[in-house]
Amino acid sequence: MLTISIDPKSREPIYEQIYKYIREEIKQGNLSCGTKLPSSRGLSSHLEVSRNTIDMAYGQLLSEGYIESVPKKGYFVCASDTLYLEGIHIENNAREDEDESIDPTGEPECQIDFSLSGVDMDYFPYDKWRKIMRDCLMDDNKELFLSGNHQGDSSLRKAVQNYLHQSRGVQCRISQIIIGAGSDYMLLLLSRILEGVQHVAMENPAYKQAYTIFESLGYQMTPISLDDQGIRMDLLEASGANMVYVTPSHQFPFGTVMSATRKGQLLAWAAKEQNRYIIEDDYDSEFRYFGKPIPSLQSQDPFDKVIYIGTLSKAIAPGIRMSYMVLPEHLIEVYQKKAAFYFSTVSRIDQNVISQFFLQGHFERHLNRMRKVYKTKHDMLLQQLKSAGIPAQISGESAGLHLLLEFGEQVKEADRVEKKLLEAAKKEGVKVYALSDFYIREEERKPTILIGFARLKEEQIVNGVERLKRAWQNMPLQEED
Amino acid sequence: MLTISIDPKSREPIYEQIYKYIREEIKQGNLSCGTKLPSSRGLSSHLEVSRNTIDMAYGQLLSEGYIESVPKKGYFVCASDTLYLEGIHIENNAREDEDESIDPTGEPECQIDFSLSGVDMDYFPYDKWRKIMRDCLMDDNKELFLSGNHQGDSSLRKAVQNYLHQSRGVQCRISQIIIGAGSDYMLLLLSRILEGVQHVAMENPAYKQAYTIFESLGYQMTPISLDDQGIRMDLLEASGANMVYVTPSHQFPFGTVMSATRKGQLLAWAAKEQNRYIIEDDYDSEFRYFGKPIPSLQSQDPFDKVIYIGTLSKAIAPGIRMSYMVLPEHLIEVYQKKAAFYFSTVSRIDQNVISQFFLQGHFERHLNRMRKVYKTKHDMLLQQLKSAGIPAQISGESAGLHLLLEFGEQVKEADRVEKKLLEAAKKEGVKVYALSDFYIREEERKPTILIGFARLKEEQIVNGVERLKRAWQNMPLQEED
Repeated sequence: MLTISIDPKSREPIYEQIYKYIREEIKQGNLSCGTKLPSSRGLSSHLEVSRNTIDMAYGQLLSEGYIESVPKKGYFVCASDTLYLEGIHIENNAREDEDESIDPTGEPECQIDFSLSGVDMDYFPYDKWRKIMRDCLMDDNKELFLSGNHQGDSSLRKAVQNYLHQSRGVQCRISQIIIGAGSDYMLLLLSRILEGVQHVAMENPAYKQAYTIFESLGYQMTPISLDDQGIRMDLLEASGANMVYVTPSHQFPFGTVMSATRKGQLLAWAAKEQNRYIIEDDYDSEFRYFGKPIPSLQSQDPFDKVIYIGTLSKAIAPGIRMSYMVLPEHLIEVYQKKAAFYFSTVSRIDQNVISQFFLQGHFERHLNRMRKVYKTKHDMLLQQLKSAGIPAQISGESAGLHLLLEFGEQVKEADRVEKKLLEAAKKEGVKVYALSDFYIREEERKPTILIGFARLKEEQIVNGVERLKRAWQNMPLQEED
Repeated sequence: MLTISIDPKSREPIYEQIYKYIREEIKQGNLSCGTKLPSSRGLSSHLEVSRNTIDMAYGQLLSEGYIESVPKKGYFVCASDTLYLEGIHIENNAREDEDESIDPTGEPECQIDFSLSGVDMDYFPYDKWRKIMRDCLMDDNKELFLSGNHQGDSSLRKAVQNYLHQSRGVQCRISQIIIGAGSDYMLLLLSRILEGVQHVAMENPAYKQAYTIFESLGYQMTPISLDDQGIRMDLLEASGANMVYVTPSHQFPFGTVMSATRKGQLLAWAAKEQNRYIIEDDYDSEFRYFGKPIPSLQSQDPFDKVIYIGTLSKAIAPGIRMSYMVLPEHLIEVYQKKAAFYFSTVSRIDQNVISQFFLQGHFERHLNRMRKVYKTKHDMLLQQLKSAGIPAQISGESAGLHLLLEFGEQVKEADRVEKKLLEAAKKEGVKVYALSDFYIREEERKPTILIGFARLKEEQIVNGVERLKRAWQNMPLQEED
């Protein structure tokens, strides 16, 4: 019979004291493999506890595999050649956690950051957003907590379809739209769908995140230079790529628009072979300051070759994590077979809030407002740069949330000049960005600095440009060594 | 000079009328490639509109690539061999959309569905959830709309770490935790991290979604039969697999617990070779009705071989789309190199709401409540089944949200018998599930029906079992043809 000292005053339940005692006895080998345990009736009267208590303890040991039950014979200690593993169990937990809040680079923060990412949240209609959220949950809306359509709720896809049609000319059924948690996820999903695509061409310079993702997915990658109309068709043809990733409405980072001629050539290129595709990344087409929006390439594609990807990261906020992808009809069939089993990656509540944000007109109003806000900042930045007399050509000024400053003539090592410009700016407490960061492969070109304005206030823009002027005045731009 | 008839009363802005006229002239070939357009000054006086209006129209044509600007010479029509593509433009939109609300299978719905998916949302603390959401957004919390940590906000990971440590014995630093939008996404991400894993073994029967995902990702797959202790080690060794996906704390769908012996053997198996891993899917360990929770396999792993995956789909709700993965230390290093660039797939607001839900103790209270709610349903279902005299052995009753009914003896074509049982139930308006749905490869076994109870009310359980009794009484279970 087991002699277990039970402490009835312990906060630990009695069954647990018994369970732990027997577990330890087994672990330490005092109860060896095959040993029969006392019957629960016998042990209960021996320990003067209820039989139920013993049953609970035995049940726990059973469910963890320490003992086994042999019908009509009783409980036996299991073979446990590997039970030593349990020694390093649960208890020794308290490893100290690293403090992740410290900036890993250890660099001092610049006072003014002409950041290229992020949006201005000062004008976000928080009250509307809160109200929609409240309304969504007001009736204890159970529906929103259940699994939804894998492509996204149809009301949201309907709203996205309307928006894309009206503002981007995108033509599609809602069955062609897939909602997902960000553009990175969209590319992951796409890699599950596309058959026969092994080689991806990208604009050079480009949105490097997409390059990194494709590369990590094992695709052969070729960067393609641009001319003044867009991606160079001769290089694309010669590359042997069967997919090309482009930003036709607002080349990232140059801010140029692909010419209608080049768009046609690109579509014709894709039409030539069955497994050729174009990914149109329409990442910030919402913010044009002059004329109407450029219609999307998708809207001009008669060949069903364009995979359209858009995001709410710029139009609403990056923390939202929502993108949409419009697949050509025949790829939706492939999706149905090869990837439709993946559950949606966007929570139902978020989907509902955003579809209401669209339906109630807040999205459009917000965009119109932000276009004005950004235009004001944009114009002010432009005017400040011009009047400061910074010795650079300004480009990329018709749309988007950043400008480019080109310094001097084409040189072989533009990145070295850019580095100098960055360093000089940093000494004045200003962070700006080098075009070289966006080149997959360097080219002979004009040294170019990128300055974003979305997150800066007007006085910061004025102050930042003053500092840049100080930083860059009388700076020798040519190599002298 | 262009003669454009302008309608000053039109709601269409004048610049747009001019833009459209010229665009059409170019498209139809009336203005051919290389044609010089009138100067904006000339055209403005000709048409008696402001020069700014002409500049806007030209600007739009420029940005869409219809015309080009040659410095000091003027505007010229672009070469446009492919402009015909634009013919099928934007206008012809109104394709009717399919109505997705219709059930594609066209089957009449059963009155009582002993569904295996979903949760009971009647007891969800909606008021608490709403309050947390409101508080999160109350101060126009801009932070929540910006991009966050790619692995998930550290406050959320801290909360998950605490929870996993206390309730599952999981030992990890927060730097080992990755938050993602559902377990499917976690497996996708994992496939980007694991090097040298080509062959995945799974329990048979299993959670087939994981099987489908691994298969679609190109892994060689081997289903492994179970014995009463868990996955069969002899078959696993012989398979040549270097990763195994298991549900040790509550085998899905059998509901059994892997024995301590088998856990040790499994860990020892993984330790034998460098590229061997164990994925522990701890999908519903929250709901045990007897004894303490079974400690996770991860908590007993001295070899850093267990990749632990859990989800909030059962503990909170499937619509939430949040899972967590705990990687061994050395895999976090690989993650940093190979996949850390993927942005998080969970919105910052959701992350914040859930971390508050944890921190304020609502999660624990909710789980305790749901454990009682489900236990009541579970006990009632068990008691109803027993008293109905349904000729089946009941199993899987110590935990989880479903029970298994085993009919008769082992037979070769258990799936055929199950089909009969399903059909008979359906005639009585009851939907139950066949174990064959979860077999990757069929085995000689007892015909088995699965019945879930999470979403049914108590009276539905009573009514459902009555119907099952009618459906199955006097049903010949052996093949007679």
